[in-house]
Amino acid sequence: MQRLPKVTALSVDDSGWGYFLCSYKELRAGRSGSEFLFLSLQDSSGQVVGKLMCDVERYKDEFDAGEFVRVEGRGSNYNGRVELVLSSIRRVNPDQDRREGFREEDAVLSAPRPITDMWAELQEHLQGVKNNHIRVLLNRIVADHEAQLRVWPAAQVIHHAYRGGFLEHITKMAEVGRHVSHAYGADWDLVLAGIILHDIGKLQELAYEGGAGSYTRDGNLIGHIALGIVMVREAINGISGFPDDLRAQIEHLIASHHGVREHGSPVEPKTVEAFILASVDELDAKLNQVRKAVAEDPGDDEFTAWNKRLGRVLFKGKA
Amino acid sequence: MQRLPKVTALSVDDSGWGYFLCSYKELRAGRSGSEFLFLSLQDSSGQVVGKLMCDVERYKDEFDAGEFVRVEGRGSNYNGRVELVLSSIRRVNPDQDRREGFREEDAVLSAPRPITDMWAELQEHLQGVKNNHIRVLLNRIVADHEAQLRVWPAAQVIHHAYRGGFLEHITKMAEVGRHVSHAYGADWDLVLAGIILHDIGKLQELAYEGGAGSYTRDGNLIGHIALGIVMVREAINGISGFPDDLRAQIEHLIASHHGVREHGSPVEPKTVEAFILASVDELDAKLNQVRKAVAEDPGDDEFTAWNKRLGRVLFKGKA
Amino acid sequence: MQRLPKVTALSVDDSGWGYFLCSYKELRAGRSGSEFLFLSLQDSSGQVVGKLMCDVERYKDEFDAGEFVRVEGRGSNYNGRVELVLSSIRRVNPDQDRREGFREEDAVLSAPRPITDMWAELQEHLQGVKNNHIRVLLNRIVADHEAQLRVWPAAQVIHHAYRGGFLEHITKMAEVGRHVSHAYGADWDLVLAGIILHDIGKLQELAYEGGAGSYTRDGNLIGHIALGIVMVREAINGISGFPDDLRAQIEHLIASHHGVREHGSPVEPKTVEAFILASVDELDAKLNQVRKAVAEDPGDDEFTAWNKRLGRVLFKGKA
Amino acid sequence: MQRLPKVTALSVDDSGWGYFLCSYKELRAGRSGSEFLFLSLQDSSGQVVGKLMCDVERYKDEFDAGEFVRVEGRGSNYNGRVELVLSSIRRVNPDQDRREGFREEDAVLSAPRPITDMWAELQEHLQGVKNNHIRVLLNRIVADHEAQLRVWPAAQVIHHAYRGGFLEHITKMAEVGRHVSHAYGADWDLVLAGIILHDIGKLQELAYEGGAGSYTRDGNLIGHIALGIVMVREAINGISGFPDDLRAQIEHLIASHHGVREHGSPVEPKTVEAFILASVDELDAKLNQVRKAVAEDPGDDEFTAWNKRLGRVLFKGKA
Amino acid sequence: MQRLPKVTALSVDDSGWGYFLCSYKELRAGRSGSEFLFLSLQDSSGQVVGKLMCDVERYKDEFDAGEFVRVEGRGSNYNGRVELVLSSIRRVNPDQDRREGFREEDAVLSAPRPITDMWAELQEHLQGVKNNHIRVLLNRIVADHEAQLRVWPAAQVIHHAYRGGFLEHITKMAEVGRHVSHAYGADWDLVLAGIILHDIGKLQELAYEGGAGSYTRDGNLIGHIALGIVMVREAINGISGFPDDLRAQIEHLIASHHGVREHGSPVEPKTVEAFILASVDELDAKLNQVRKAVAEDPGDDEFTAWNKRLGRVLFKGKA
Amino acid sequence: MQRLPKVTALSVDDSGWGYFLCSYKELRAGRSGSEFLFLSLQDSSGQVVGKLMCDVERYKDEFDAGEFVRVEGRGSNYNGRVELVLSSIRRVNPDQDRREGFREEDAVLSAPRPITDMWAELQEHLQGVKNNHIRVLLNRIVADHEAQLRVWPAAQVIHHAYRGGFLEHITKMAEVGRHVSHAYGADWDLVLAGIILHDIGKLQELAYEGGAGSYTRDGNLIGHIALGIVMVREAINGISGFPDDLRAQIEHLIASHHGVREHGSPVEPKTVEAFILASVDELDAKLNQVRKAVAEDPGDDEFTAWNKRLGRVLFKGKA
Repeated sequence: MQRLPKVTALSVDDSGWGYFLCSYKELRAGRSGSEFLFLSLQDSSGQVVGKLMCDVERYKDEFDAGEFVRVEGRGSNYNGRVELVLSSIRRVNPDQDRREGFREEDAVLSAPRPITDMWAELQEHLQGVKNNHIRVLLNRIVADHEAQLRVWPAAQVIHHAYRGGFLEHITKMAEVGRHVSHAYGADWDLVLAGIILHDIGKLQELAYEGGAGSYTRDGNLIGHIALGIVMVREAINGISGFPDDLRAQIEHLIASHHGVREHGSPVEPKTVEAFILASVDELDAKLNQVRKAVAEDPGDDEFTAWNKRLGRVLFKGKA
Repeated sequence: MQRLPKVTALSVDDSGWGYFLCSYKELRAGRSGSEFLFLSLQDSSGQVVGKLMCDVERYKDEFDAGEFVRVEGRGSNYNGRVELVLSSIRRVNPDQDRREGFREEDAVLSAPRPITDMWAELQEHLQGVKNNHIRVLLNRIVADHEAQLRVWPAAQVIHHAYRGGFLEHITKMAEVGRHVSHAYGADWDLVLAGIILHDIGKLQELAYEGGAGSYTRDGNLIGHIALGIVMVREAINGISGFPDDLRAQIEHLIASHHGVREHGSPVEPKTVEAFILASVDELDAKLNQVRKAVAEDPGDDEFTAWNKRLGRVLFKGKA
Repeated sequence: MQRLPKVTALSVDDSGWGYFLCSYKELRAGRSGSEFLFLSLQDSSGQVVGKLMCDVERYKDEFDAGEFVRVEGRGSNYNGRVELVLSSIRRVNPDQDRREGFREEDAVLSAPRPITDMWAELQEHLQGVKNNHIRVLLNRIVADHEAQLRVWPAAQVIHHAYRGGFLEHITKMAEVGRHVSHAYGADWDLVLAGIILHDIGKLQELAYEGGAGSYTRDGNLIGHIALGIVMVREAINGISGFPDDLRAQIEHLIASHHGVREHGSPVEPKTVEAFILASVDELDAKLNQVRKAVAEDPGDDEFTAWNKRLGRVLFKGKA
Repeated sequence: MQRLPKVTALSVDDSGWGYFLCSYKELRAGRSGSEFLFLSLQDSSGQVVGKLMCDVERYKDEFDAGEFVRVEGRGSNYNGRVELVLSSIRRVNPDQDRREGFREEDAVLSAPRPITDMWAELQEHLQGVKNNHIRVLLNRIVADHEAQLRVWPAAQVIHHAYRGGFLEHITKMAEVGRHVSHAYGADWDLVLAGIILHDIGKLQELAYEGGAGSYTRDGNLIGHIALGIVMVREAINGISGFPDDLRAQIEHLIASHHGVREHGSPVEPKTVEAFILASVDELDAKLNQVRKAVAEDPGDDEFTAWNKRLGRVLFKGKA
Repeated sequence: MQRLPKVTALSVDDSGWGYFLCSYKELRAGRSGSEFLFLSLQDSSGQVVGKLMCDVERYKDEFDAGEFVRVEGRGSNYNGRVELVLSSIRRVNPDQDRREGFREEDAVLSAPRPITDMWAELQEHLQGVKNNHIRVLLNRIVADHEAQLRVWPAAQVIHHAYRGGFLEHITKMAEVGRHVSHAYGADWDLVLAGIILHDIGKLQELAYEGGAGSYTRDGNLIGHIALGIVMVREAINGISGFPDDLRAQIEHLIASHHGVREHGSPVEPKTVEAFILASVDELDAKLNQVRKAVAEDPGDDEFTAWNKRLGRVLFKGKA
Repeated sequence: MQRLPKVTALSVDDSGWGYFLCSYKELRAGRSGSEFLFLSLQDSSGQVVGKLMCDVERYKDEFDAGEFVRVEGRGSNYNGRVELVLSSIRRVNPDQDRREGFREEDAVLSAPRPITDMWAELQEHLQGVKNNHIRVLLNRIVADHEAQLRVWPAAQVIHHAYRGGFLEHITKMAEVGRHVSHAYGADWDLVLAGIILHDIGKLQELAYEGGAGSYTRDGNLIGHIALGIVMVREAINGISGFPDDLRAQIEHLIASHHGVREHGSPVEPKTVEAFILASVDELDAKLNQVRKAVAEDPGDDEFTAWNKRLGRVLFKGKA
């Protein structure tokens, strides 16, 4: 038996074994008395539905949602999408399975770019900051949260909701934002600070574990905008001589980055840099959703099926 | 010449001298070449338009907006409202004028209740807090900002926009909120914390000077909700053993107190206490506007003129 | 076999017999040919799903939705919620079953407080009315509709949708509203009139039978606001000497109690009393939903699952 | 001196005397010390600004707003609009002035069609009603309010705000609505009832005196929709054997005629007839505003100036 | 075996054979292993669910969605609606089946009026146009698209979504619009042009095949409003001497016919004719939905079930 | 007497003569009988109020709004802004005044960058287009409208409302858009086509004369989105072999560039390129407003006065 290909390459002709993160598990009861396991399985490239129909009793306690699993199965077609029909499943035994090629990062839905590349790019941006105060601040915050910043998603569901998504989001925003700042004579140091810090509160808003994000108590009760401002204020308090108007402008970038109050920003952009940040953030989030909708659409038409969140179909172009 | 009555008692039959805060000053140029001074004068009871038509050159540099002034003049009717037509005006000379009865608090638009009464009531509420953590927190913040809390307004324009307005707003909310909390079995200590702290960020959002509030840099750029959360977080950081879930709930009260995102709350109420706080806050602000609109309406009809901010006329009842 | 506990106390360990109102009944066809009965059963404490899988043919015509039933069964777990799996079911035979302990009020979803207590409280409020006209009006309307007012729900679905819900809603509003009126120097008699009469049109808008509310023709076509105004106008027409401005103010309370036109109020609050009524009504309806969502949430987390109607999760606190 | 032409025919070349209703009067104080009277004068064809600059003292107490006046003056151009510059003004002395040709109906802004024509048309519609119950109801209500229905405006400001406007509104709606009802197989008797009764509450909502409408207490506090339903209910109560479902449908027409809740309808259309009524009502009100905006626009362009209420310019076509 | 009645006349007592368009086909997998075919079948009178439970393997490749089929089966009740339970199904063999009575137009959901009647009515309207330019334009466009205009639906889903729906929509609008235009002294030629042309872009926006409409590339990317303006501009470019202001007014009718920008009109009505067009269009679309909702509601109540698109229940009246 | 400095450099210490465009002229009547001319004067750098108080009769017919004028006068302070108080004014005599240094482009409010620079930049972009079809299309349209594209504003009022504003808007968008397209792997040729063509309909929507834009008949009735699509369609029709899907995507860019229907786009973005275009367009328009509001704010505070169109104050930073 051979190893299954990556999820995005999976076809009905494939069968074999593989490692996945099981991000969802439900025992569905058929009315005829039979039960089956309905699972969501992910690897770094994407997500696929898994179903185990036979020997349910034997396998159903062999793993839990949130755990890495080793499965055997074959591709199957359901309403035009490929699924995995499983013949066996069990939780990964790290010691043993690592020897057979299991790596955690391969089995978690991930950003398309390697994390090391993105991290290096972020470091370059940091080194290019001219304003001493801002550079110190950004380096300190990035260093303090390196472990999270490397692997966290940028959101629970809507956009960049996968391993490395946070880093992908801010490096792409930095790539775009630098040019936009230059074009409008904006203060690039400030815009970069906004890009790196605007979602920093998400590190407290979300918990990211087992390949899935969930809201924390502070996330539900306070939200990442206020949490981020508190984090930045505490960091700035620890830096002597940080100019107060600079602090206010940086906190403004965080406070206003959703652009309008209806989207949860308690204040709206009042500086050129804040307008740029909100625009670049929104475009990056939107395009990430567009790319995902286009990539995941199973049909052969020029357009995707109706995308509920975006409220429209999307043009895919000719096959 | 006798002293003028309080602004709310002023009639066209009055003439004399008085002390006021000049909160607005504009030199209006008439087309015939003549100029006159258009002023806004306030004492503790209310606000009145002042006009100086004669000897403008002589008086126009004798004072500035934001200063206390001594005027001589008489009541006059303009479109159904009483105005003061001035014959002289000069800035107050504190040493000299105090001897003649000038007191700053008499010449600034003020809450109807004496500040000492409201302050005592606030202290009683503080002493009644059962939760030690909350009591320590509230006492510390109230003590730290006593000077401001005693005299600040609750807003720049919309409601309670006068000396002592902040204190009037939170004591009235406490009076109401205690009963509401009891009725719904809510945690009164928490609701009281929300009442006292929900607008605490306004002490940094606004600058209050010369009887007029204006937005600070932090107010414009960050807003009182995030500023308040930062203030409370810093206070709580200084209190050892403060339970983290309690902190989160208190910060939630501040974050959600505008009730909906469209009104600037980054998160919406998710606890019984937060629903109560938002409701009591909104009602108190609305009724303060209603009372003001009814009190200031000059007409004799059963209804006020159209109130633009509230988007309606208001019922005054029979004369 | 013993009697089943109250619905809210039911666990998977319970089995036995009990009396319920069957508020919903559907024959669901399994694809394998088998059918089962899907039921909604309620007693005074809550609602539970009932399923009858065996002997469906024998039992399916033994009762109808809207009838009281006697069932035998046992608790069962389905997706984390307790259900009742039934082995038999039949409609109640009043004569016989009363002897075995059947009481209608025990088998209908009900307000948590006893109706007699709430009714006594309402009477006290009525006796406290100082304005003769208002007291006569309220007493007459309450007396005329006593049978309904004692047991009706306050709404078909959204809040207080159970036996005694109307009475629970107005007594709680009266408890809260009295303090609020006092705090703002409002006319308590008027506010009380608004509390008792604001939803009086629901007695014509809804039909309440068999533990379930439904919309009447007049409810769908005219709505409880206009219906209530007509009812009150007719009652006032029968009271000689009722002052016309008082009538207008009372009708205004009914007309404006939804607060804004988007929620169906043809006019918006224009009196202090109307602002208070709309605020107290909305808070009571919201908190009833919050309590229900928290009480019914089956999970162990600090927060409930997403509540669609409220558009948020709710904080439950530590277990 | 000759008599002035109708307002809509007035030019800068005209001078003479005339009778008008003075609907607005304000003493405006010039900064140079001089005062002048700023007036709004209307005759049946339109409205014009009047200004009296000289001998203000002599004339200013010779009349009040809301009175008929006799003026002498000449046309004058102000910012592209014709005004009347007056040399004298006094209130009408009915006995004397009637002999010189004064007629009240000539001096009040009026519908373009003669009232007698419109009234006859309404009577024809009434006679054509086939349903006995509806015919009795309509005849009774029309007869009871004939005096008002003949001369009232349809609104205070927005549309048909002139003598006979109510009658013009409902006869035009009847002309249109009959064809629409026929086209859709709707019940024309019901639609006609909706047309005649939908605004009947305005007879209590507004007070119409001296050529100007204003809101009554009931109008402000209850609104014409609920007032109209009360009026119709009381009329129906006085007609024996009126079918209850017919009553509900007629009240539904009144309740839903604004089409959506945001516009103040407590319920939205649920019958074919209610959809037709709301559509015909809205179109007639809109087109009346369009006609007025086009007619009153002073410019020579193909488009009117910006119309604030309609939020657009309007096409007038070639001159 | 006899021929099945029309869909709208189908009852549980019917069995036999018939011709239908299969507009939807799905193989639903039962959990017990069994599969069944879930179909949507239409004839000219309506739509019905079809289910084939037995011999699925044998029949499932005998036809596709979008094809005409010949079925055998019997009426069956499912949750109060009549369905067709099939014993056999195959695609129509035109040569053979025509001999047995198959006609395409009988097997496609169609407008209630015969197309030839509606077409004749449209021709009459065209002949009545007085303005030469408009008449030439309309005749040319109608002639160029006769094949489509005769049979297309007016929309994909929302209203008049059946064969001949486009023609039914514009002839009904013309019937109504002529009277409305007359009543308001509007230019009937222009209004008629608007009625015939307002949706002309739908001929490029939609593809209509096999009884079902779908969006084309141009429809998704450009929309019928801009497409229609392009079509009309090209037609006008081919007519010498077409007055430019007339062209602009006709294009305005197309551009503004959704009435407000939120509904996709890039400009809002600025002429009397455009206000009339938007009003008549909206009413016709709404009433078509109302009629459909009432006609298809299976219940016996006075009201339909909740209609999601219209956001309300609808009054059906007594049975 | 010396020549006055540029408007943006004008101070109260300046006096002399200069050339301006008079974009607004009003004879204001003072109540004391005296009149004065209120003017708006512009040169390439900005706009300033001009007032002529003396010898009004002599000068008032010496020029009209929309003409170039030669004035003599001095700077004056009015409410903190510099105005020009004129002692003489007359229309420019081109022959004579050119000899004294008059150049039209110096006397019209203009984009800050020289038009020749921006034009050269646009040409470079055009030369870089790789797709032949797009390059032909863009070159043709740009060549056909060169005269307008060089000097037109981008809007009548809101943003880039000055000579060369259209060109400034699209070159800045191209500068930004190129980087954004690259970052997201979008088709830069397509995005550039969208940038150059998205507002092309404004050349028909607006008339630009005498330094001021106004709406044309087609602009008011059809709007620049549909007009632009028609223009592009006609241009594409003249290019043989233009791929239809490319045409549809380009028209989509025009149709969707306002981003949402509420802003007048009949369809919303459905391609990556359309999302980018709408984002870049909105940001450029917003930042142009922000720059203008900051530049024109006369105060010394860190923030501008309230900006009504943007609905906020703006941060200017330290003086």
